[in-house]
Amino acid sequence: MRIQIIGFGNIGKGLAKVLIKKEKLLKKQHDLKIKVVSITDVSGTARDDKGINLSKALEIIKNGRGILSYPKATKMNGIEAIKTIQADLVVEATNTKIEDGEPGMSHMLQAIKQGKHVVTSNKGPLALKFQELNNSAKKNSVQFKFEASVGGAMPIINFAHETLSGDKINAIEGILNGTTNYILTRMSKEEKSFEMVLREAQEMGIAESDPSYDIDGIDTACKLVILANGILGIKKTYKDVKTQGIRKITPEAVKLAKEDGYVIKLIGEVKNNNLEVSPRLVPKNHPLNVEGVLNVALLKTDLAGDITIVGKGAGSIETNSAILSDIISIWRTGI
Amino acid sequence: MRIQIIGFGNIGKGLAKVLIKKEKLLKKQHDLKIKVVSITDVSGTARDDKGINLSKALEIIKNGRGILSYPKATKMNGIEAIKTIQADLVVEATNTKIEDGEPGMSHMLQAIKQGKHVVTSNKGPLALKFQELNNSAKKNSVQFKFEASVGGAMPIINFAHETLSGDKINAIEGILNGTTNYILTRMSKEEKSFEMVLREAQEMGIAESDPSYDIDGIDTACKLVILANGILGIKKTYKDVKTQGIRKITPEAVKLAKEDGYVIKLIGEVKNNNLEVSPRLVPKNHPLNVEGVLNVALLKTDLAGDITIVGKGAGSIETNSAILSDIISIWRTGI
Repeated sequence: MRIQIIGFGNIGKGLAKVLIKKEKLLKKQHDLKIKVVSITDVSGTARDDKGINLSKALEIIKNGRGILSYPKATKMNGIEAIKTIQADLVVEATNTKIEDGEPGMSHMLQAIKQGKHVVTSNKGPLALKFQELNNSAKKNSVQFKFEASVGGAMPIINFAHETLSGDKINAIEGILNGTTNYILTRMSKEEKSFEMVLREAQEMGIAESDPSYDIDGIDTACKLVILANGILGIKKTYKDVKTQGIRKITPEAVKLAKEDGYVIKLIGEVKNNNLEVSPRLVPKNHPLNVEGVLNVALLKTDLAGDITIVGKGAGSIETNSAILSDIISIWRTGI
Repeated sequence: MRIQIIGFGNIGKGLAKVLIKKEKLLKKQHDLKIKVVSITDVSGTARDDKGINLSKALEIIKNGRGILSYPKATKMNGIEAIKTIQADLVVEATNTKIEDGEPGMSHMLQAIKQGKHVVTSNKGPLALKFQELNNSAKKNSVQFKFEASVGGAMPIINFAHETLSGDKINAIEGILNGTTNYILTRMSKEEKSFEMVLREAQEMGIAESDPSYDIDGIDTACKLVILANGILGIKKTYKDVKTQGIRKITPEAVKLAKEDGYVIKLIGEVKNNNLEVSPRLVPKNHPLNVEGVLNVALLKTDLAGDITIVGKGAGSIETNSAILSDIISIWRTGI
């Protein structure tokens, strides 16, 4: 299987590491030999039809240079790489941009048009134009998989499709953002103010210097749209989500909740065609009450009742557990 | 797809209900038409090569009679039914007997020998002779699936195989028995004695009149053996499990644990080739702390880190969510 990697940041590098680590296992367990025929980052594209030396690529990047420093790499961009290089599958791992979903959107559409399967961790294009991507993939008879775009190592999408194949899933609610969960957990445990915990989270690298994407609920809203479309078949986009973040939560509110046996969590919920992100009271002993940076999703099903999955929401290697399982799934059902 | 149901108690009846409810959906979503060609219970076997009328079968059973009252039913037993009736798949849903695994063991081996796929909810045969069943299925090129045997609606086995296909799972721990979880939860919340809560659970039908199977950890041990063999490939049987139940847990122990921020739970754990069932202290905010009759399993993986699944451990319809997903999975990969 020939793979192109577009985007060589945390996720792309993690994929390279995982492919090195799992090479023998993939051959043995799945009879799958993966060849990365190109890697593209902002500097350009490394290409080798016989398979890029992933250790070498990682070594180059580690020294602060772009992939352009790889032997014989060129300034070719992602679109050109997808257009001109022969491959079976494109892993789109550029960063999410919620304004227009670019450049991920164009990368994915181009790959699909060329008859290449797409696996992505990039929320933006899916939150904005899920149906366009999905329809395009169907029309071109390629697979379009996006487990890594929601909840990193919490594999809820394939779980719903494969493992719960006999159930109808009626609603989903969950904590889909680790940063806000971390902040709310510490506010509850230490009775500190939102601002103080946020600052500490930023110092620890858990929150970004511009934290609005997380704390205003934007990230959660994107993921909710993906779950709504990808699992429930509800054709809504990012603009349809009623979103409220956690900026206004006071230590007093957290304390009052605690005294009554509750915690405050930023919950994303899709139910009856409605998508909502808002801080909610969760009973202390409810399965949705998970702590720290963990993510959790609760699926309401017709046969099995409520099923909850808890997992790490982020992390370079963790997220690649999802990317790898998508790749294996495409391989199993025939490339 | 022609199915034989062996055992028509809670699980078998639940399957009939679910097949009626899901008939159209299975056709539409999976292009799967299921025909139940025989149903066997202790009274005999109902048979119809054109497909048994499941509503009628349920109606007959509801009136307290055996399946022998179904039109043209005979006194044929399970083994004979499997031997003589043409079918693609056998659902073995007789009760677990941990002494010798019979009659389930003979049913499954006979079905496999006849080239029929097997789906089962019956723990006994798997806890005693997993490898024999598995090897026999391989030799005869049939599929052998047992999601329903562990944790009813908590679909951990297919989750591990399908959804986490890129991960190596190193260890599993969990609460695999709803009755003990219910008793321990109430002991913790109400500071009552074990005997008192057990008696109440028996009155409510949550614990059986002879509760030893649950409270002495036998049920948990059986399930742990199935997870060890089925997910981790560890070839151990029921007799290899170090098992301790919850009879000796005092209200004082529960109270002390609580004061220190812990709860006591009956945990089954498989790690480093060791299988152990014992009451353990679980931190209050740990994902394994789920309440009431819920089941939970935590999988330790190499890429994704810890992933936890929480679901209902029992229930006639819930368990058939697992049986149905096994049937669909066999259908998808070719019968």
